[in-house]
Amino acid sequence: MTSPDVLISEVGPRDGLQSVKATMPTADKLRWIDALYAAGVREIEVASFVPAKLLPQMADAAEVVRHAITLPGLTVMALVPNRRGAEAALAAGVHKLTMPVSASAAHSLANVRKTREQMVEEVRAISDLRRDMAPHVKLEAGISTAFGCTLQGDVPEDEVIALAVQCIAAGADESGLSDTVGYANPAQVRRLFKRLRAELGEHAGAAHMHNTRGLGLANCLAAYEEGVRTFDSSLGGLGGCPYAPGASGNVVTEDLVFMFEAMGVRTGIDIDRLMAARAPLIAGLPGEPVYGMTPEAGLPKGFKPQGTTHV
Amino acid sequence: MTSPDVLISEVGPRDGLQSVKATMPTADKLRWIDALYAAGVREIEVASFVPAKLLPQMADAAEVVRHAITLPGLTVMALVPNRRGAEAALAAGVHKLTMPVSASAAHSLANVRKTREQMVEEVRAISDLRRDMAPHVKLEAGISTAFGCTLQGDVPEDEVIALAVQCIAAGADESGLSDTVGYANPAQVRRLFKRLRAELGEHAGAAHMHNTRGLGLANCLAAYEEGVRTFDSSLGGLGGCPYAPGASGNVVTEDLVFMFEAMGVRTGIDIDRLMAARAPLIAGLPGEPVYGMTPEAGLPKGFKPQGTTHV
Repeated sequence: MTSPDVLISEVGPRDGLQSVKATMPTADKLRWIDALYAAGVREIEVASFVPAKLLPQMADAAEVVRHAITLPGLTVMALVPNRRGAEAALAAGVHKLTMPVSASAAHSLANVRKTREQMVEEVRAISDLRRDMAPHVKLEAGISTAFGCTLQGDVPEDEVIALAVQCIAAGADESGLSDTVGYANPAQVRRLFKRLRAELGEHAGAAHMHNTRGLGLANCLAAYEEGVRTFDSSLGGLGGCPYAPGASGNVVTEDLVFMFEAMGVRTGIDIDRLMAARAPLIAGLPGEPVYGMTPEAGLPKGFKPQGTTHV
Repeated sequence: MTSPDVLISEVGPRDGLQSVKATMPTADKLRWIDALYAAGVREIEVASFVPAKLLPQMADAAEVVRHAITLPGLTVMALVPNRRGAEAALAAGVHKLTMPVSASAAHSLANVRKTREQMVEEVRAISDLRRDMAPHVKLEAGISTAFGCTLQGDVPEDEVIALAVQCIAAGADESGLSDTVGYANPAQVRRLFKRLRAELGEHAGAAHMHNTRGLGLANCLAAYEEGVRTFDSSLGGLGGCPYAPGASGNVVTEDLVFMFEAMGVRTGIDIDRLMAARAPLIAGLPGEPVYGMTPEAGLPKGFKPQGTTHV
């Protein structure tokens, strides 16, 4: 059993579900997570620990985490915007916390009602908290709007990199870059990840790309060629930015896995079982649009995947 | 007025229209071509010279060509499968002929009822013909199914390259590679274009990518990074492979132009006017699905295109 070449970190149960109006029943969430696991997915962002009155879709976050941590070898992540969320996530037993830290000053205030500086302090507080409560738990700071912002437009690259450096200095184990609103282009992705990796070394984290303008896979390719090995994506492309109506959201996991496997890059995921994991997603969100070109077109004739490593 | 960095070769009026059942009225075709031209598009494959009983959508090919050649600076291309078509296209006044030469033995027989060897002889005959009739006219041999085939699966890379070399030896001015059925992946695109350019030098032609499995832009990026500078694409992603139901077809011109312009690669095209060129397309093909993520999401706030060179 050899390690995959890349880690596909599924964010659908968090990033995907929080973007849709409907609430997926807990039982469907668990079936969906089980199906992703059965396909060989080994990191899943399963929930967001936020007040249920803000995001009723996430009211069952603790229950979902308690189920997911029973799956051997799965890294169970949850998004936490603040200390209160982190406490609840740690109490539920997550393996990894992820915090959204906006590089755009405007988006930071709009999203978490904190300045960027305050969010760095929050990273520090949460890092200390998990050291006390659960020292094995990892902490990721995802730099959102790292490639531009619908509120302020351009986000200076120096500010993006400086913020990631501050998050690591504040105690985060890794810091990745998120194209929250689908503004990124491959040249920019190469530039920013090159700098991030030069500054952070082994602390440089995932590429979290959206497909709002169709460039999701091209941006992942650019990040891969700069050495990035962890990619966030969402089954069925679930998610989507409320600022870009009609546009699909996160990079589609099925298409991303197809791209890598076709290139000879091992994902560890069984693509046929991954396709099958769409069924519980669709069943749990009736009427919600689900994206993905590869599921629609099917695999090429004689397609040879790279072999799974987990299943 | 400086030259663009890449040439976007619009194939919608040919590859796009021949894939849909409906026939676009000639007047709409001309309005569409005019709108593409007004946006700065400077190479358009406007028609296919095939028997009207096979492709009624192309019955007005000569009329369309006669209009298109009145637009100053526009390279007017037409697809010709055989000598008869080439004669008609040359008589109508095209600037460039393109011939589909299948690398897949099975697809060659299915598509043009000729073996690959017979098609190379056809390239030779048509090259001689245009030298007699119109020596300034360029001839391109597009190697179709260069990245795999729905009929035979894998297509050996050696055979793809050898066929392109034979086409140039037979008199074609350039030979590009087409992912006719959307099987290509970026690693394969890099490998094949690297070999093509090494073998053909300045005779190496366009990347013609389809988006059937969502990898169209990633494949164009890979080709660009290997030095390819001409890209076929289709406004609204019109086209599509009859073997891949429900999947969109050619790379979407709007998204491709957005990708390059965002990267700082000059296309010479005004992206706002390009978006406006969708209107005559949609008007001429009521009810036909039209793709494109960038038109749906809109341009990023504060987006700075690279400046047009023609318009």
